[in-house]
Amino acid sequence: MNKPWHAVTEQNPKGNALSEPFNTVVLRKPYLLFLGEETSPLKAKTAFGLRDWAPGSCTGQMRMPGGTVDLGLRELDPVAAYAAGARSLLIGVTPVGGRIPAHWSPILLQAVRAGLDLVSGLHTPLESVPGLARAAADAGVRLVDVRRPPDDLPRATGKRRSGKRAAMVGTDCALGKKYTALALARAMREQGIDADFRATGQTGIMIAGAGIAVDAVIADFIAGAAECISPDAAPGHWDLIEGQGSLFHPAYAGVTLGLLHGSQPDALILCHDPLRTHVVSWPDYPLPTLKEAERLYLQMARLTNPGVRLAGVSLNTSALDQAAAHEALAQAERELGVPAFDPMRTPLDRAVAALLD
Amino acid sequence: MNKPWHAVTEQNPKGNALSEPFNTVVLRKPYLLFLGEETSPLKAKTAFGLRDWAPGSCTGQMRMPGGTVDLGLRELDPVAAYAAGARSLLIGVTPVGGRIPAHWSPILLQAVRAGLDLVSGLHTPLESVPGLARAAADAGVRLVDVRRPPDDLPRATGKRRSGKRAAMVGTDCALGKKYTALALARAMREQGIDADFRATGQTGIMIAGAGIAVDAVIADFIAGAAECISPDAAPGHWDLIEGQGSLFHPAYAGVTLGLLHGSQPDALILCHDPLRTHVVSWPDYPLPTLKEAERLYLQMARLTNPGVRLAGVSLNTSALDQAAAHEALAQAERELGVPAFDPMRTPLDRAVAALLD
Repeated sequence: MNKPWHAVTEQNPKGNALSEPFNTVVLRKPYLLFLGEETSPLKAKTAFGLRDWAPGSCTGQMRMPGGTVDLGLRELDPVAAYAAGARSLLIGVTPVGGRIPAHWSPILLQAVRAGLDLVSGLHTPLESVPGLARAAADAGVRLVDVRRPPDDLPRATGKRRSGKRAAMVGTDCALGKKYTALALARAMREQGIDADFRATGQTGIMIAGAGIAVDAVIADFIAGAAECISPDAAPGHWDLIEGQGSLFHPAYAGVTLGLLHGSQPDALILCHDPLRTHVVSWPDYPLPTLKEAERLYLQMARLTNPGVRLAGVSLNTSALDQAAAHEALAQAERELGVPAFDPMRTPLDRAVAALLD
Repeated sequence: MNKPWHAVTEQNPKGNALSEPFNTVVLRKPYLLFLGEETSPLKAKTAFGLRDWAPGSCTGQMRMPGGTVDLGLRELDPVAAYAAGARSLLIGVTPVGGRIPAHWSPILLQAVRAGLDLVSGLHTPLESVPGLARAAADAGVRLVDVRRPPDDLPRATGKRRSGKRAAMVGTDCALGKKYTALALARAMREQGIDADFRATGQTGIMIAGAGIAVDAVIADFIAGAAECISPDAAPGHWDLIEGQGSLFHPAYAGVTLGLLHGSQPDALILCHDPLRTHVVSWPDYPLPTLKEAERLYLQMARLTNPGVRLAGVSLNTSALDQAAAHEALAQAERELGVPAFDPMRTPLDRAVAALLD
């Protein structure tokens, strides 16, 4: 198996054995991005995310007849992709129902025989596709369902680890925690800071090439999985840890708390969507104010890192015009006293400076 | 399958379809308690717990040559036990390593052929015992590993449910949360109150005959499992919900929080061991004061039930003499302003009154 891959590794000047995750899903890069016969870019969010956040890990794209989604990468079949260096075919689209259509089987078999691992985040286990497990065994390649956690995860030790960690926390699910972590890791690396994005969900794992889908872990091991994801590191090394769920979510707060405790963050980045008033799909649950969220996250994070502090607030302002976005950011900054930014829209240098402070 | 069984059902005057758990593990009672060749009562805690807390559910005991542990129940072999009404053979001892010894196989096969379900909380999956799965299928009986959660658990809805709920919460693991819930359920029933013990761990499930081991559930479904365990009920009905872990535990707090949110408790009973200073096996983590614990549990429980209040404090005073126990209870009562009790040692009527208040 290849050595675990560092997130955004193509920009990583110095490999650091100390900070390699253990007991996580590890993918073999680079990827051939499979787009099926998809015609809607919305159904290809995974593929676009990989192209945007791990461009050095994308060897090419492969489409079936009728497919119109275009990542702007070269078209390769599995054999040509392998020859060009690819080591996995990654399913980058989500068909209706989230399942692998039966007519994809010949292409998946072809990829396996070409020597490529298969990487999927769909509901259908790859092993359940007829003939695939046998072909993979024959070819010596792996079928990787990225949502499936590694076996034998440890329980959390609670022991403090070396290196620095920032946890992305949110007032709700799905408001930009992953992109915030990716953007901060990229910005820190551009400044020459040794930093890794650490993935806790399936798209993040594909981008990073390693990680654990913490919401799919057995409950007793949530914090233990988080400890595996961001291991001991050099004193100046930063982990930017993707968040999951929210402490204010009636269904998922347990995942959020276990992840927070296992991450032992030195710093928090609070992520929020200024237009959102209630937990998505749970209309009985209003979102907290930024101040309430700051207070509760700091309070809970202190259990495993008493020195934790808030370092920034990340707003998803995609639905606001320039003036409204500016006002929302200014208001968040006044409310919390830390730099506010939109990772897709504004510079991150003040947030990076606050992290390092 | 039999209809789901009510906890402590032998004392339950009125069956109430409304309060039947759904999507939980359900066991067929009564049990033949299997004690193997055990000689140490400490290794037979499960069997003693069943005898003490579900006496009406224990048809008899079965020992192998050399076994000296005695529950004081009649000795029955599987055929005689079935004739006497037993519907499951329950493994009531924990052999070294927590595994099923190979030489138990003939007895397990005999039980299955006699028409008994097998119920186990050991690490070895019952299905992995050679020949057992086939024999069970032939006999039309079930192999039930109680730690294994039901498939297809739902995500939590967060919607308020009818009926009343009390959640046992603790400053740590393993300090009496299960016995507190059992004792309160028993005391309430003795007063004619419609009350059920709701099980969230393996011994509790065996006693109740239903429940879910919430620490073994996939992380996304912790709160959803808790909703299944204590469903809608009549307005005057009380669920006494077994707790797991602690919000102050660096490894398990996520389980505790998900369980708390899904339970939507109207009342909390705070469980504590006055001699314990640190989280067991995590010596870097001091326990909170009772007041700190009260504050955090109430704060977190308010998300799904804004009306939650503390109704009592349960102390495990087993290591204290009478005078010291009395003083510890008096001090806890002064500190929190609610009735303090030891469920194994003191009357519960003031705590029950406080719950109903």
